[in-house]
Amino acid sequence: MRITLIGSGNVATHLGAAFKNAGHQIVQVWSRNLQNAALLAYHIKAEPIDQLAKIDPNTDLIVIAVKDDAVEDVASFIPIKNILVVHTCGSKSLQTLEKYFVACGVFYPLQTFSKNREIDFNSVPLCIESTDKNSTDILLELGKTISTQVTYVDSNQRKTLHLAAAFACNFPNYLYAVAAALLQEKQLDFDLLKPLILETALKVQEFLPFKVQTGPAVRGDRQTMAAHLTLLQHHPDWQEIYRLLSQGIIKMDKHGSA
Amino acid sequence: MRITLIGSGNVATHLGAAFKNAGHQIVQVWSRNLQNAALLAYHIKAEPIDQLAKIDPNTDLIVIAVKDDAVEDVASFIPIKNILVVHTCGSKSLQTLEKYFVACGVFYPLQTFSKNREIDFNSVPLCIESTDKNSTDILLELGKTISTQVTYVDSNQRKTLHLAAAFACNFPNYLYAVAAALLQEKQLDFDLLKPLILETALKVQEFLPFKVQTGPAVRGDRQTMAAHLTLLQHHPDWQEIYRLLSQGIIKMDKHGSA
Repeated sequence: MRITLIGSGNVATHLGAAFKNAGHQIVQVWSRNLQNAALLAYHIKAEPIDQLAKIDPNTDLIVIAVKDDAVEDVASFIPIKNILVVHTCGSKSLQTLEKYFVACGVFYPLQTFSKNREIDFNSVPLCIESTDKNSTDILLELGKTISTQVTYVDSNQRKTLHLAAAFACNFPNYLYAVAAALLQEKQLDFDLLKPLILETALKVQEFLPFKVQTGPAVRGDRQTMAAHLTLLQHHPDWQEIYRLLSQGIIKMDKHGSA
Repeated sequence: MRITLIGSGNVATHLGAAFKNAGHQIVQVWSRNLQNAALLAYHIKAEPIDQLAKIDPNTDLIVIAVKDDAVEDVASFIPIKNILVVHTCGSKSLQTLEKYFVACGVFYPLQTFSKNREIDFNSVPLCIESTDKNSTDILLELGKTISTQVTYVDSNQRKTLHLAAAFACNFPNYLYAVAAALLQEKQLDFDLLKPLILETALKVQEFLPFKVQTGPAVRGDRQTMAAHLTLLQHHPDWQEIYRLLSQGIIKMDKHGSA
């Protein structure tokens, strides 16, 4: 396929490379900042542009991969109306694009992308949605060329998926940061926790999380929980987090599921 | 070394196998339940016993690997007083053993062990502590035969390490469970989140967590946070967790660290 990329951030960079590696042609890369566009365009052999008015109409698909808040703004300035346009956001509905284009959709890669980390796109789940059957088929086909896990997810489901991703990624990472800070206070190396963090994530690749819950809360070990809360006495915020999450674990255990 | 294992649970099983594979001889395995002792003893070619009075004094080290709450009880019934005895608990101080034995220590493998998962013990951090220099040297040497990461950690530090492990393992696993439950409500497969969970854990193997925080809270994206809280309206407990953790992330961002 001939694909036009709108954006030059993490998602655009990883998607662009995956498309290119799968044999697709990236026609143009747009960024507000021409230098950013040029940098990504160079790697995936595309033309860099910094004006949406310059989008080449000889393309099969326009992929808007900009920050969530900028999607609608960018969409409103795309002059071409009769080419399939998708956005890549978990938090934005399909409706965001519907008022601007005849055929549109969502192409949401459910992963956390960072500049300095390679991602094996093959294992990134792609969540597809679109306005019509024809576009859906095109997006599912395209998805399968870069990932082994391509699923149709409607806007309503995707909202929940995006929320769940906060619980599965953003919040655990914050808790890692709290753990790292606690260790630092006692001159302990964060390296000590790395194998534990990794194993915890690996375990739920195989088992449902509520079945492999460990720790004092699920054992009902009130003595250890009390000792932990005392240790946190100079960090009232973390104490409150400890209390709330422990209560959640105790309730989950009773219900046999969160 | 000649090693006696007290316990037949997850930690005893994984430790026993690691010792055996490193060429040590497991003399006996004790469990309250002889069948459990026999099962583990069979795998590591040891003698199963169900009475602490039957411990063979011809051993170099007694490893107490029972539940945290049972450590002291078991220790009080071990009739041999002049052999090095260690426990394997993160939450128990060295003092727990000091009243019962001349030389004692702690041999704490910082990992979450499950019956059905193989663990590469080589990458499990071992936290060592003991009453005297000679015992410390013995335990550090022993540790190095089964792990590449062996560290001296005193009881005070270990308390914090054990608390930090709750933040790095128990609580993230609970949040995975909440995410799984949210997905289930919308007939979405938990498989969709697995690569995200794994990548989040892999990222902090390389970078400090506060440097790779993602999500609406760290972006200050109040619109998305409000939408997420609305989605959680039928789950007030999870709403409170969402609020508290998001506030933590916002504060962390300001301080440049949790």
